[in-house]
Amino acid sequence: MKSILLLLSGASLAAAVPPAKLLTPNDIVAQARPSAWKPIPDDDLLVIDLANGGRVVVQLAPAFAPVHVANIKALARAGYWNGASVYRLQDNYVAQWGLNDSDKPWPAGVTPKPPAEYTRPLKGLSITPLGSPDPYAPGAGFADGWAVAYSAKAGWADLAHCYGSVGVGRDLAPDTGTGGELYAVIGHAPRQLDRNIALVGRVVEGIDRLSSLPRGTEALGFYKDKAQYAPIAGIRLASDMAVRGRPSYEAMDTRSPTFARYLKVRANRRDDFYQQPAGGVDLCNVQVPVRKRNPLP
Amino acid sequence: MKSILLLLSGASLAAAVPPAKLLTPNDIVAQARPSAWKPIPDDDLLVIDLANGGRVVVQLAPAFAPVHVANIKALARAGYWNGASVYRLQDNYVAQWGLNDSDKPWPAGVTPKPPAEYTRPLKGLSITPLGSPDPYAPGAGFADGWAVAYSAKAGWADLAHCYGSVGVGRDLAPDTGTGGELYAVIGHAPRQLDRNIALVGRVVEGIDRLSSLPRGTEALGFYKDKAQYAPIAGIRLASDMAVRGRPSYEAMDTRSPTFARYLKVRANRRDDFYQQPAGGVDLCNVQVPVRKRNPLP
Repeated sequence: MKSILLLLSGASLAAAVPPAKLLTPNDIVAQARPSAWKPIPDDDLLVIDLANGGRVVVQLAPAFAPVHVANIKALARAGYWNGASVYRLQDNYVAQWGLNDSDKPWPAGVTPKPPAEYTRPLKGLSITPLGSPDPYAPGAGFADGWAVAYSAKAGWADLAHCYGSVGVGRDLAPDTGTGGELYAVIGHAPRQLDRNIALVGRVVEGIDRLSSLPRGTEALGFYKDKAQYAPIAGIRLASDMAVRGRPSYEAMDTRSPTFARYLKVRANRRDDFYQQPAGGVDLCNVQVPVRKRNPLP
Repeated sequence: MKSILLLLSGASLAAAVPPAKLLTPNDIVAQARPSAWKPIPDDDLLVIDLANGGRVVVQLAPAFAPVHVANIKALARAGYWNGASVYRLQDNYVAQWGLNDSDKPWPAGVTPKPPAEYTRPLKGLSITPLGSPDPYAPGAGFADGWAVAYSAKAGWADLAHCYGSVGVGRDLAPDTGTGGELYAVIGHAPRQLDRNIALVGRVVEGIDRLSSLPRGTEALGFYKDKAQYAPIAGIRLASDMAVRGRPSYEAMDTRSPTFARYLKVRANRRDDFYQQPAGGVDLCNVQVPVRKRNPLP
C-alpha cells in the first residue's frame, strides 16, 4: 500500500494524480518565475559545519536584531566558536550550540550587553498579512521574507518563533544575551518566546542535522556529559568563504503575486489528498520558500 | 554562562529563582492534586517496542475514531505488525511505521474500509475552550483530555493534529486508511490535515525515540533502502501485557480547576524569564499533561 504513505503529505505525484489536479504549495514553488525570488546576501549567511559532516546554514536578520547580528558576525570572523558544540537537544523545543561554560573573553567588535532587540518598529516594513487569526499578536504576516507578528496600533513588529528560527540564549536580565550561545527551534513553534528573546535568523539548510540529534537526558535537554556533545568543526560567514563553492540561496519575495498564491493555497488545500480545506493557516505553517541558487559558472 | 542555557525554556530552577516567583506551567503540573488526574485505560494504550530498545506508547482515542481504533486493537492482538518498521521520517512532519509494501491479509475483526472518521458530533463532549483564536476552526479547546477543534454551529468536533498526534495513513479515497500504517507528528502541527485524515491518538511516552531518528533521504522522507528502516520488535496493547510491569499513565482532567490554571499560565507566562506575556496561546502549545502512574504495589 505504498500510496497510503506517499500521499500522506499531499504532495504531487505524477503517477497518482489526475491531469487537472489543483496546485499544491510545492507546485507553486516549483513553477515560480525568477522574478518571484530574491537573493539572500552572502554576508547574512552563517555556515555551521558539524564535525560529523553535516552542514547547517543560518540566514541572519540584521533588519530585526542589528546589534545581536553584528555580534554574531564579529564572533564568526574572530573564530570565537573554535571548539564549539551542540550541547543541548530538548525534544519539541530547541537545539542549542556554542561554547557552553566557557569564560572566553569577547573579541573586538562585540557589544557585551546589547539592547533587548525583541521588537522593532513596524514602520519601514512592507507587511503581507497572513489573513488568519494569530493567538500571539494582534497581527501576523510576512515582511521582507520573514514571518512576523505585529501590532499596527502599538507600532511594533517582531520575528516569530517558528520551526527553524534561530535565537540568542540569555540569562534572566534582557541584556545578557550576547550571541555566543544560539538555539534553533526544532519543534512546535514556541511562540510564547516571541518578544521575550532576540531572534536573529532562521535555518535555511540542514535543520534536520540538528533535529535528528539524540535528545539530551538532563533537565531541559542538556547532554549528560561532554562525550555526547555534537562537535562543530567551524562557523563562518559565507562571505568569508571562497566565492566558488560558497553556499548561496534565494528566498521567495513575500510581496510577489507568487507568494500571495502560495499563501492562499497553504490556507486552502484543494489538491487531491484534501477533502476539507481549512480556510485558514498558522503563521508557522507558511514557511517562506528558500532554495539554493545556481552555482557560479 | 550556564544560566543562559538553563533559563531558555523558562522552566523553574531552584538555584536561580527568587522564592516569590510566579508559577510556571511545570510548577502547576508538579503541584497538581491527585483529583486533577484521570487514569488512562490500559486497553487504550498501544505499546510499540523498537528493536533498538526504545519504547513508544500511544494513547488511543476510541471516542473520536471508534472503527479505526477497533481495527488497531485487532491488528495488535493478531500480531499483524510482526516484522513492522519505521520506514518514513520526514523532517518537521511525520514518522510513519507499519509493514509498508506488505500485502498481508487483514486479520479477523478488522474493517477493511472503515468510515472516514475525521470528525465526530460535538454533542456529548464537555469542552474547555482554549480562549484564543484558532486559524483552523471556529472553535478550539479540550475535551476528555484531548486537544480538539470544533464548530458549535455545524456541530462537529475533531482531534487536532499536534506534536505527537497519531493518525492513519490513507490513499486518496477517504475510506482507504485501515490502521495498518500509522504516523506520528514530529514537527510543527500540520493542522491542514485536520478533518482530512483519521487521528486515532497521541504518543504519551517516547515521541523522542521517533523524532530523533535519521531523516529519510527519499521524497517525503522515505528511507532509501530497507537497511535504514528502524525495526519494531513488537506492538501490543498494555492490557495484553502482564499486569505487573505494564506501563500505566494518567492524564490531567481538562475539566479540572488545575487544568484551567495551567491553560491560563500557558497563555500568560509571567515567570522570571518572561518580560512580555503573550496573552494568548496556540492549541498545540497546551499539551495536556500526562504522567506515569505509580507502579502497582
